[in-house]
This record gives sequence, structure tokens and C-alpha cells, in this order.
Amino acid sequence: MSLITVGTMAFDAIETPFGKTDKIVGGSGVYVAYAASNFVKPVQQISIIGYDFPEEELAEMRERGVWLDGVEVVKDKKSFFWSGRYHEDMNSRDTLATDLNVLADFDPSIPDSYQGAEFLMLGNLAPKVQLNVIQELNERPKLIAMDTMNFWMESAMADLKIVLKYVDMLIINDAEAKQLTGMYSLVKAAKAILQMGPKYLIIKKGEHGALLFHGNEVFFAPALPLEDVFDPTGAGDTFAGGFMGHIAKTGDISFENMKRGIIVGSAMASFCVEKFGPSRLKEVTKEEIDARIQQFKDLVNFEIELT
Amino acid sequence: MSLITVGTMAFDAIETPFGKTDKIVGGSGVYVAYAASNFVKPVQQISIIGYDFPEEELAEMRERGVWLDGVEVVKDKKSFFWSGRYHEDMNSRDTLATDLNVLADFDPSIPDSYQGAEFLMLGNLAPKVQLNVIQELNERPKLIAMDTMNFWMESAMADLKIVLKYVDMLIINDAEAKQLTGMYSLVKAAKAILQMGPKYLIIKKGEHGALLFHGNEVFFAPALPLEDVFDPTGAGDTFAGGFMGHIAKTGDISFENMKRGIIVGSAMASFCVEKFGPSRLKEVTKEEIDARIQQFKDLVNFEIELT
Repeated sequence: MSLITVGTMAFDAIETPFGKTDKIVGGSGVYVAYAASNFVKPVQQISIIGYDFPEEELAEMRERGVWLDGVEVVKDKKSFFWSGRYHEDMNSRDTLATDLNVLADFDPSIPDSYQGAEFLMLGNLAPKVQLNVIQELNERPKLIAMDTMNFWMESAMADLKIVLKYVDMLIINDAEAKQLTGMYSLVKAAKAILQMGPKYLIIKKGEHGALLFHGNEVFFAPALPLEDVFDPTGAGDTFAGGFMGHIAKTGDISFENMKRGIIVGSAMASFCVEKFGPSRLKEVTKEEIDARIQQFKDLVNFEIELT
Repeated sequence: MSLITVGTMAFDAIETPFGKTDKIVGGSGVYVAYAASNFVKPVQQISIIGYDFPEEELAEMRERGVWLDGVEVVKDKKSFFWSGRYHEDMNSRDTLATDLNVLADFDPSIPDSYQGAEFLMLGNLAPKVQLNVIQELNERPKLIAMDTMNFWMESAMADLKIVLKYVDMLIINDAEAKQLTGMYSLVKAAKAILQMGPKYLIIKKGEHGALLFHGNEVFFAPALPLEDVFDPTGAGDTFAGGFMGHIAKTGDISFENMKRGIIVGSAMASFCVEKFGPSRLKEVTKEEIDARIQQFKDLVNFEIELT
């Protein structure tokens, strides 16, 4: 099965209590694609880059089964750039710079070679861009998932509410779920979001794990307790990429299989934070992934007899 | 098996976004005892109260198998009083009043009838008081667990470090674990605490669940996602009471059984927050508790084949 992913391919400069980077490759589309490519091929990438995006990175992605036909290259502009500094607790960060560059002109179109894909992951982009992608598809995928953020809730809520009616699953964090609904209780927020269009909702809680809601069902996956979180950048996108990679690999959109997808996504996110940027996602082996999934099983497993 | 519990029996006045109470019965010892008495009898309570503590509450406790021989009654003083206001998100609160009253003189002694108890839960009290209780016991219990708080870390750290060497298990929240060790990473904090004396550590994360550490083993239990948290007061003590109640009922201090205890404690805490004060703990039935434990099983259960 194939998976279309739409997201940024960009540069980040990151400061954490453990160190700082110069400009390194990042962007939601990069994290999603590297995470998903551990499970499914092809990953059909849609993005936009400038003249400065490294050819070696593109070669690496191609080698991992990431198709780049849908990646537009703008010859006279720079790639999107973000810079941020994490606080001591690693749970909050300040944005130091956001240079849209090529992203200001992003108007993606679907290459013919991508048509017929069974799965679609819409990264965090303007809701109008997300909707355009959906409408350009000749056949509706089996599962359309999307991410979004507070910026679009503040600047384009009406558009966001429209695109929500076209997707099957929303993947956001706890603060975003509260902001989208105005509700403090995540359970109430989830019920409200499931009335807005998506039939499935994943709420990411960072180091506190993730919740999956569908109808009256709920599943909780913990995050792995880690000794060090070296760089949280991209962990949420990596989670989404691992989740969609597992779903696309299996072709199974049952609730039971989505639970497995969340464990896979959580495992991938736990690798992501071990090094700066997406580097850990490129070196991780199947054996390491399986061992980490086993750690998740051990972490939450208990037997209790109700007598 | 019997369980000695040491903690406050007091009055609270609570404001939440859902309403406010006049003075109602509260205190760590009350929550621990009511929670534990759902699982084990006798619960042998050690506390101090003033002339104003309601006789009906004492009668209710006795009826539930809570022994009160170790509860000192001071005829000319009032019971301990705490008043607080929860913020809109229910995760933080302001203390409006703390009247120590009888608590200033608390110097507990162990009634002869309590000697030989297999389990001891030391509620959050001055470390010297906690140590005195341990030293008054003729036989060492199978498991001694204790709670503490930031106040004692700031005012009596040396005493706290001494009493930690005498206990088997520490039960604290995430902020307290960080403060006790000066470490941001809970995993690193846990390793440091397991060097201070306790062989077992439970870190409570409120709505984000709880972690159990022992040697290199770790277990995670989620909190149940709740539509409404009506009043969080006493939830942590109720968790500890449910945990120790299960351990004392079974007499089994294996890691596997402690996992079950944490699920039982989490279930009891999820009832506690449904109403003001400990009232929900008095009316909950075995059928309701079993149904809630089943919800925890369903919440985290997943099957994944590693191929």
C-alpha cells in the first residue's frame, strides 16, 4: 500500500540544554517520511524546497523509498527555516526565527504517479492547502489523517473547520485540542472534535503519552520514560509518521490495528528524541524498533483477576 | 493482614470551578483509611483530632473496620484545617488557609493493639514524626511506604533523608521527585531516589498516571481519562490507600502484585475526584470498583506480534 505525505522539508537551528546545532535538515515532512519509510514503501512526498536543500538528503530519501515527484524545487529562493530554543524542562520552547521563504508560495499539486494512494497524511499547513490536496485526489484514500496547530485556529478557524469535515482522523496535541474546542477536559474536547468531522482522534501528550478516541472507545499509550530527551524537535511528526507507516503497511484501519499503530508511532518518537534532528530515524534498525515495542508491552502489562 | 496508616484527620474548605464547600471532613489519613478499608480490615489509624471532629464520621470509620485506638483527641483545641482554591484547569491550586491547631502537637504513639501489623503507610508528616512511628514498632512490617512533600524538603531535608533509609517505598508526585533530587528527568530522579533508601518508588503524575520503579524495572499505569474532575482533593492519598489496601489484602509484595495495587489505587482515585471530599469513597461498591479496573485493562490493552 502507498502513503502520500504532505509537509515541510526545511532547515532547523535548535538549542537545547544539551547543545546547539547549526542549520540542520528538518521539517514535518522529513520526520514523517523517514519514520514511515521504516514500515512502508513508497512514501509519496509532497513538499516545496529552495535551492539550498541538500542533494544528499534527497538522495537518502529516495534510497529509502520516499518518492519526490511531488516536491517542488524553487530555484531562486531558500527553504523554510525555523529556529528555536528549548527550556531546561524540555517541555516548552521559544521560537527564535521563522523564515517562510518558499513556503509562502506552497500550492501543492498531486503528481499522476501518486494517484490511487490508499493513505494520506496531511502535515501541519494552511487548512486551504490541506483541502486542495484532498480535492486533487481522483480517488478518496482509505484513511486521511491531518495535523494542525494553534496558528491556524487563530488565523483560519473557518477554513480549518471545513477541512475537518473531509478527514477521517485528526492528530493534535493536548493544548491544541483544548484550544480547538475551548474545553479543559480532554474527554469533553475529544467528544466535541469527533462531532466536527473526524471519526478518529489522536491527542498527543508528549512525555505523557497519547490517547486515541473513536466513538465511545478510548485507548491510551504511554510515552517511554526516558533518561534523557536530547532534542524533542520532530517527535510529534515522527509519531504520526510511524503511526501512518504501520497503518499503510498493514492496510488495516480497525481500532485494534490503530492501537498497534500508536505503539509503533510512540516507539519511533522515542528514538527521534535521542539525537538532534532526524538522524536517529535514519540509523534505527528493525531489531531496535522491535525491542522498543517490547519495552512498551512490558511497561503497561499487568494481570489482574476480578473475583 | 492489617495495615497501620498515619495521617491527618481534618477539615477542608474547597473551591473548584464547579462549586465550593463549607468545612468538610478531609485529611490524608481520612482518604487513605476510606480507600484502604474497601480492601482490608482492620485499618489501624494513627492521627490527632480536636474537639470539633464529628462523632458521626468516627462512627462511620469504625463501622468500616478502621480502628481508632491510635487517634488522639485533644479536648481544648480544634482539628487541623486547610482551605484551597483550584484553578480553572484543576491542575494547580492556591492555599487560602492552613491552621495547624492540634497538628502542632502531634507526637503519635502506637497502641499495643496495633503491634504486629504487616503493613505501614506513613502519610505526609514531619519526617521526625514518621521516624518515631517506625521506631515504636516492635516488629518491622513487611512493607513500609511513605509520602512526603516539598515543605519538608525545604525545612527538614536532613531528617527526610534519614527516614528514607528506613522505608521500603516512597510515594510522591513528579514535582516532588524532581525537587528531592534536583533532576528534571523522572527516570534519573527515580534512579537517584532508589539510592537514598527505598527499594520501590511510585511517582504520581495526577491526570497523567503513575510510574512504579524497582531496580531496573518500570511499570506505568495511566489515569482514567475523565470527563469531569469535580474535586482533586485527596486523590493522591486515595491512590496510596487503594494501593496499600490491595497489598495488605493480598499480603504479596512482589513487583507483579504492586502493579495490580497501582491499578487498584488509580481506580480508587478516579472515584475520589467525582465528588467533593471523601464522600464517593464511602458509597462506592465492589461492582463499581471491578468495572473501573476493567476500564483500565481496556484502556491500555493492545496486542502486537513482533515478526
